[in-house]
Amino acid sequence: MHAATLSEFDRDTAVRRREPGVYDADLSAGWAIGHALNGGYLLGVLGRALADALPHPDPFSISAHYLTATVAGPAVIRTDTARTGRSLSTGSASLFQTDADGTEVERVRVLATYGALDALPDDVRTSAKPPQIPPYEHCFGTEHDPSGADTPAIAARLDMRLDPATVGWALGKPSGRGEVRAWFGLADGRAPDPLALLLAVDSLPPTAFDLGLGGWVPTVELTVHVRAFPAPGPLRVALSTRNLAGGFLEEDAEVWDSADRLVAQSRQLARPLRDGS
Amino acid sequence: MHAATLSEFDRDTAVRRREPGVYDADLSAGWAIGHALNGGYLLGVLGRALADALPHPDPFSISAHYLTATVAGPAVIRTDTARTGRSLSTGSASLFQTDADGTEVERVRVLATYGALDALPDDVRTSAKPPQIPPYEHCFGTEHDPSGADTPAIAARLDMRLDPATVGWALGKPSGRGEVRAWFGLADGRAPDPLALLLAVDSLPPTAFDLGLGGWVPTVELTVHVRAFPAPGPLRVALSTRNLAGGFLEEDAEVWDSADRLVAQSRQLARPLRDGS
Repeated sequence: MHAATLSEFDRDTAVRRREPGVYDADLSAGWAIGHALNGGYLLGVLGRALADALPHPDPFSISAHYLTATVAGPAVIRTDTARTGRSLSTGSASLFQTDADGTEVERVRVLATYGALDALPDDVRTSAKPPQIPPYEHCFGTEHDPSGADTPAIAARLDMRLDPATVGWALGKPSGRGEVRAWFGLADGRAPDPLALLLAVDSLPPTAFDLGLGGWVPTVELTVHVRAFPAPGPLRVALSTRNLAGGFLEEDAEVWDSADRLVAQSRQLARPLRDGS
Repeated sequence: MHAATLSEFDRDTAVRRREPGVYDADLSAGWAIGHALNGGYLLGVLGRALADALPHPDPFSISAHYLTATVAGPAVIRTDTARTGRSLSTGSASLFQTDADGTEVERVRVLATYGALDALPDDVRTSAKPPQIPPYEHCFGTEHDPSGADTPAIAARLDMRLDPATVGWALGKPSGRGEVRAWFGLADGRAPDPLALLLAVDSLPPTAFDLGLGGWVPTVELTVHVRAFPAPGPLRVALSTRNLAGGFLEEDAEVWDSADRLVAQSRQLARPLRDGS
């Protein structure tokens, strides 16, 4: 495929294999929130490297620990295979960047098990139900935000519309329920796939905002289960937090595809750095 | 402390540092379910090694990928530190055993971030509520199991009583809701602590039984968040599954202590190997 026709997400999560287990990447400032690159975007980059390093194509369970903020620019990813089996493989991956003084610093460490989603039987006994979100036309995009707040660079990469019931925080009226729901897609129309699900679970405004906490909410750890290849069309993402305590919170995400399938579930441990709005 | 006074759990999760980053352990058959050692017990062993290797004492977020079944007997744990910070540290750990032909095989790989629970502020804004379980005296222990099924070795290590509403499967009448709830403690009365929480989230009968699935339900991956040091006294553990599909299921666990604090949350990806009972 000619480079000019690549989706932004594919172009910006591309990795080049330098040698077995070593990949180069050019991380794009287009996926930043403030000064730091979005954790889900980084998970997409690392996930792409692991998909090449392991004999199975799709992340089934992938955990990332974010050590220090990753910035735009060059990065090196090193992978290590723990085990390759008939239906599942497991490996680790680390993303490094070189500091101004020439030191290589590890930014993100990942541990993941991969499989082949298209090899799974198609029985579905999911008891969970899709989130109730008003139609897309009745939801709010960043262009509708009356608060006048600066939009992060990543917003231009996404086609995201928030459930009006979960935007009170943008008007100084957080609901206190710790919920955020949205329609989600990529701005250039690229169809969702497993790697895009890794982005989707970490791209909505944080539940911390709906709990009345402002400021930065860095992710300590994020674990995603990808359970099915998403159908084409818009995704629905629902976030919830039930355990804000001791200076940390858990943020759960569910991603539902256009066929009402629960295609991904995640939980992250995050650390709101400033109380109050 | 004299060895004879150690709790079973402390004795059987003990590790001996051979050199920095290398630990020896003797894994006990007392924590087996069938032929394989319980995943939560193994996480306790690996968690103890990481607590020694890292400068912070408590697992805040710990993920384990189970590669092949671990058996009783000698094991070696190798740790690697990714980053040490002021309040958090991150590292990896792998558990190896030597096969009959002398090959060292990796059984479990772990990635975790540690901190100090006693350094956390004591604000609690948890919106989740403790599970509704009848009093301990009205719940069922394995000695009450009328089905006559063999009890696994680990049952003798635990003081566990199941909510009557979640034992129908033992009588051939699974509820289909995918829920299991129980009072949980260690049989020798040892008070709970963070490492014991790693055991607690993986010690109840699996939700798969309540969904009408019999047989073995191996854990592919397990991620635990430890959010507070548990108060002394019995724990309440509640499991739930909402996404049984494609031959896999997620099993969520919440652990509540005697002070009604949500001290741990976990999710595992598991793979029921045989449908039907």
